[in-house]
Amino acid sequence: MEEQLSMLAAEIAGRLFIEVEASGRHVHVTEQQAVALFGQRLTPLRPLSQPGQFVSGQRVEIIGPKGKLSNVAVLGPERKEGQVEISLTDAVALGVSPPIRLSGKTEGSPGILLRGPKGEIFLDHGVIVARRHMHLPPHEAQLRGLKDRQIVQVKLFTSRSLVFDDVVVRVDPSFAPRVHIDFDEANACGFKKGDYGMIIHG
Amino acid sequence: MEEQLSMLAAEIAGRLFIEVEASGRHVHVTEQQAVALFGQRLTPLRPLSQPGQFVSGQRVEIIGPKGKLSNVAVLGPERKEGQVEISLTDAVALGVSPPIRLSGKTEGSPGILLRGPKGEIFLDHGVIVARRHMHLPPHEAQLRGLKDRQIVQVKLFTSRSLVFDDVVVRVDPSFAPRVHIDFDEANACGFKKGDYGMIIHG
Repeated sequence: MEEQLSMLAAEIAGRLFIEVEASGRHVHVTEQQAVALFGQRLTPLRPLSQPGQFVSGQRVEIIGPKGKLSNVAVLGPERKEGQVEISLTDAVALGVSPPIRLSGKTEGSPGILLRGPKGEIFLDHGVIVARRHMHLPPHEAQLRGLKDRQIVQVKLFTSRSLVFDDVVVRVDPSFAPRVHIDFDEANACGFKKGDYGMIIHG
Repeated sequence: MEEQLSMLAAEIAGRLFIEVEASGRHVHVTEQQAVALFGQRLTPLRPLSQPGQFVSGQRVEIIGPKGKLSNVAVLGPERKEGQVEISLTDAVALGVSPPIRLSGKTEGSPGILLRGPKGEIFLDHGVIVARRHMHLPPHEAQLRGLKDRQIVQVKLFTSRSLVFDDVVVRVDPSFAPRVHIDFDEANACGFKKGDYGMIIHG
């Protein structure tokens, strides 16, 4: 009986809670852009939580009208389009006004100059602030009663506890269950690596 | 009838909503510290929303073990104790680990070096990250059914909407009704000057 209760509690906790990760500023590039910036394709340095994704051994400088950010991580594998994901704090430092968007939704976003050890490229668009989102594989989504594109709230029981409204659920077989927030959001709630959030159905 | 409804709506809105302000990094000093840093007492440059409080014409540099922040606002009038209020983003840049506290609660907080045009002083403690809070004069607190030290939630209907848990209510006759958050929190919710929050009783 005790064992059954314990299993039930674990199952409920598994449906309610999800690991949260804070994403730092980073850049995505195409194969062609990688070669222009680094003279080579991206080389994996360490894996990210999302299967197949990695932090590369390559770093770039992001140069905006008002300032620059050095030593910025480039994530792999290469994509079909270059993209720069920064925080609103970074946006002020660079002097750009990016929209808050899901990754890949770069239409009409500002451009920026990228400088690598082997060359520079100007992205004519692609600077965004990542909209907070949740990755789920289909079976995890089903367990939790969630669907792709659904909006939920996620409560953080951190030192500066808060509830993130407007968390977009993304469902894909390639995903590991994680909520992704940026560093402004992480600092706003006193997030520490390994913290979990509680899903509240919107 | 229409006029009565309109007045009722305004009264309800007045109880539910409150203006939010984002506080940038700033420093408080004693009279003695002002003279040591600037060779004079603080001079008012522009008033703040809280009656009697002002941004001074004086600016300091904050120097931590890992970095420094220049041109930081000094708020007046002078206080009984020096205090440095920064964001967690700033804390990383400076290399300090401040606690999240209400203003004035500086026991055990880290120290830091301040540099002004006329001299330097080392605060042996006083670096904090401001805990989010709400200022209310007594009649406004009574209207809203709130008491000093009560914890409420405040929902922001911003571009990255969220609910701040753990907002401490402070009641004092000298206060104007405002919720104060820092720039990490402001960026986390896409706050713009003039945004209002909705109070949710915790």
